[in-house]
Amino acid sequence: MSKPKVFEKPVGVTDYLPEAVERLRRIESNVMACMRRWGYREIMTPTLEFYDTVGVASATSDKKLFKLLDRWGTTLVMRSDMTAPIARVVSSLLRDEPLPIRLAYHANVFRAIEEEAGRNSEFFQTGVELVGDASAEADAEAIALSIACLKAAGVRKFRVAIGHVGFLHGLFDETLPGQVEAQEALKNHLLRRDYVGYREALRALDVPEAVRRELEGILRLRGGQEVCEQALALSGSPTAQAAIRHLCDVWAVLSAYEAVSDVLIDLTMTGDFNYYTGLTFEGYASDLGFPVLSGGRYDNLLGQFGRPAPATGFSLKTNRILEYVAANGAGDAGAAPRVLVAYATAKREEALRHASELRARGDGAAVTTAKVDDAAELRDVTSGADGRFAFRGQLYEQVITFG
Amino acid sequence: MSKPKVFEKPVGVTDYLPEAVERLRRIESNVMACMRRWGYREIMTPTLEFYDTVGVASATSDKKLFKLLDRWGTTLVMRSDMTAPIARVVSSLLRDEPLPIRLAYHANVFRAIEEEAGRNSEFFQTGVELVGDASAEADAEAIALSIACLKAAGVRKFRVAIGHVGFLHGLFDETLPGQVEAQEALKNHLLRRDYVGYREALRALDVPEAVRRELEGILRLRGGQEVCEQALALSGSPTAQAAIRHLCDVWAVLSAYEAVSDVLIDLTMTGDFNYYTGLTFEGYASDLGFPVLSGGRYDNLLGQFGRPAPATGFSLKTNRILEYVAANGAGDAGAAPRVLVAYATAKREEALRHASELRARGDGAAVTTAKVDDAAELRDVTSGADGRFAFRGQLYEQVITFG
Repeated sequence: MSKPKVFEKPVGVTDYLPEAVERLRRIESNVMACMRRWGYREIMTPTLEFYDTVGVASATSDKKLFKLLDRWGTTLVMRSDMTAPIARVVSSLLRDEPLPIRLAYHANVFRAIEEEAGRNSEFFQTGVELVGDASAEADAEAIALSIACLKAAGVRKFRVAIGHVGFLHGLFDETLPGQVEAQEALKNHLLRRDYVGYREALRALDVPEAVRRELEGILRLRGGQEVCEQALALSGSPTAQAAIRHLCDVWAVLSAYEAVSDVLIDLTMTGDFNYYTGLTFEGYASDLGFPVLSGGRYDNLLGQFGRPAPATGFSLKTNRILEYVAANGAGDAGAAPRVLVAYATAKREEALRHASELRARGDGAAVTTAKVDDAAELRDVTSGADGRFAFRGQLYEQVITFG
Repeated sequence: MSKPKVFEKPVGVTDYLPEAVERLRRIESNVMACMRRWGYREIMTPTLEFYDTVGVASATSDKKLFKLLDRWGTTLVMRSDMTAPIARVVSSLLRDEPLPIRLAYHANVFRAIEEEAGRNSEFFQTGVELVGDASAEADAEAIALSIACLKAAGVRKFRVAIGHVGFLHGLFDETLPGQVEAQEALKNHLLRRDYVGYREALRALDVPEAVRRELEGILRLRGGQEVCEQALALSGSPTAQAAIRHLCDVWAVLSAYEAVSDVLIDLTMTGDFNYYTGLTFEGYASDLGFPVLSGGRYDNLLGQFGRPAPATGFSLKTNRILEYVAANGAGDAGAAPRVLVAYATAKREEALRHASELRARGDGAAVTTAKVDDAAELRDVTSGADGRFAFRGQLYEQVITFG
């Protein structure tokens, strides 16, 4: 391995220049303000956690965790999400706080290996966790809040797809009893949204035609409330039926939130089967081929930290929203106007006092001062065109000279 | 090494609960707004950098760097400050942007080993870099801005001490020519502000009495502008004289900023001698035994990244300011009022619409909704005392019921 060049940085990490930071900060502050208005309080946790606690409990697969050793030889991980760290805090520092607990975060998270080229190994997530409420109201609140957050972030056209891991669990256990491997293969096709592969795997299975048709039928289970009826008719499994009834309840609450126009039921949509335990959801912006948010119910996690409790939550994929906003010009409020106060030494006091007054006005102007030794430069400085002024290679909206 | 308990986190890292996050966020946003008003644009860089580039160039000693290997076997570091990463960006992505460049940051940084017990291995720094301006105006701007930032952060009583590494370099080279080891020992005592140790080391030296008196004299070089005169008289070294003359120039600009009442000249104060190349400064809050900000000129760093340029900057020790603010109750604007909208299922639609209206008003209230199945609970919910209402163990400023 040759030595890295001085200007190089590691693979998969990003420098955010001022323009990008302005956009990112605007998304962050608008979304966090939205979460606050819904009663969620922000929390921050460390970048490094123990592998044996947060690392093992996280939804991230082991090989994608960024691991290192501390100086006592204990394996640490750079956090891969905020859900497991928050579960740790809810079970320790916040142990005496009654449930439900509503927490929000904006944080950078890390992945050692990404399966897709071009993905970042460090990126931002902005999200919430609602711990201690198993009701349909709680699921609906998470979905409705995620919609409000997408809007606050500047995403204009989007849909949130909702599904339920219980439906597929029940359906597969009913139709392919004991065929664990076949179930896993089919679920993995759905997880990757590979419907062609799903159909092929289905054809390769040695099952009655009726079963095959039933399992193919779920690919059409996408739409509004009517999907619930279709799904109830499709599978008689008690697990699947309970899942669908819960989905109906959530839909009813979403109606009360006036949020159903942004929501789509998609029973082929599931998150990680080993992690999520109930309703799951994903948000898609139009024109983007990947989700901008994902979330769902994970009722088994808190127990791993010693405080068993149902929980739901979601995280915005903040970097993808940043790309969307940059591409769509959404959420650009325009940078602060740049003002230059240029002065000859003799007028320094007057000039710096004026700069101070401009800053104190607090109208968002960015005021820069520059001492100019050559009187000619000071005279030339105001000779800008197109309403902007060039001075020493930089552009300003306004130049005030003292000379 | 036994397995960590599920609720444990690594040594030296912090969970910030909502109350602390509110304070930290207030400091962050007030300070960043201040920096923006002075024409500094925010930048973000990755947590991980190459050891051979940013790691080696940073002011942090090697053994304090948090190192890890990437999957190709290259040594990475978790950033220990933001100055070296920003130097990398100024020399690469911003290579074509004319100087001077003004950049600001708020970032978490990492230390593997801290010499003092109780220090964090992950903490926040908030600061600026002004690259490409070697003038006294630039040094004074950094100092004046650091004062404005301390005020914006809510630090009420403080002093910023300024010194110059050139003065001590010149003085020691003149009085102890060639005695590198003795020079180093004396400088290290000053760096640790160990004046007793400095005097003892001085007594142990085999030098003429006049030299000893001269070197002891610098301990009295603390105060206002008059210190410059005393220092000019103390040492005839051209390096020392040039340093003092520069300090006088900076003082004159600070006068124009109306900032000298917050500034103290302290010629025994220096930062890291191997890193800083000129004027250095440190901010002290009253009642705190440690600095809350440090900064100075580092004209040799940018060249290591291939774009030689003078530079100065500072960083606030944000965690220490957070402690100060928490202890002094400064900057507490009060949390958002918490409002609960509680409803029976029959009134769900009405209740959720009301919650939505409350949130849309945007007056900063945090609105939580709760479905209440037991009508008695709904009737009881308003029976709070002392103007606050307890509901399911949580306190609210206002409870609105729909039942």
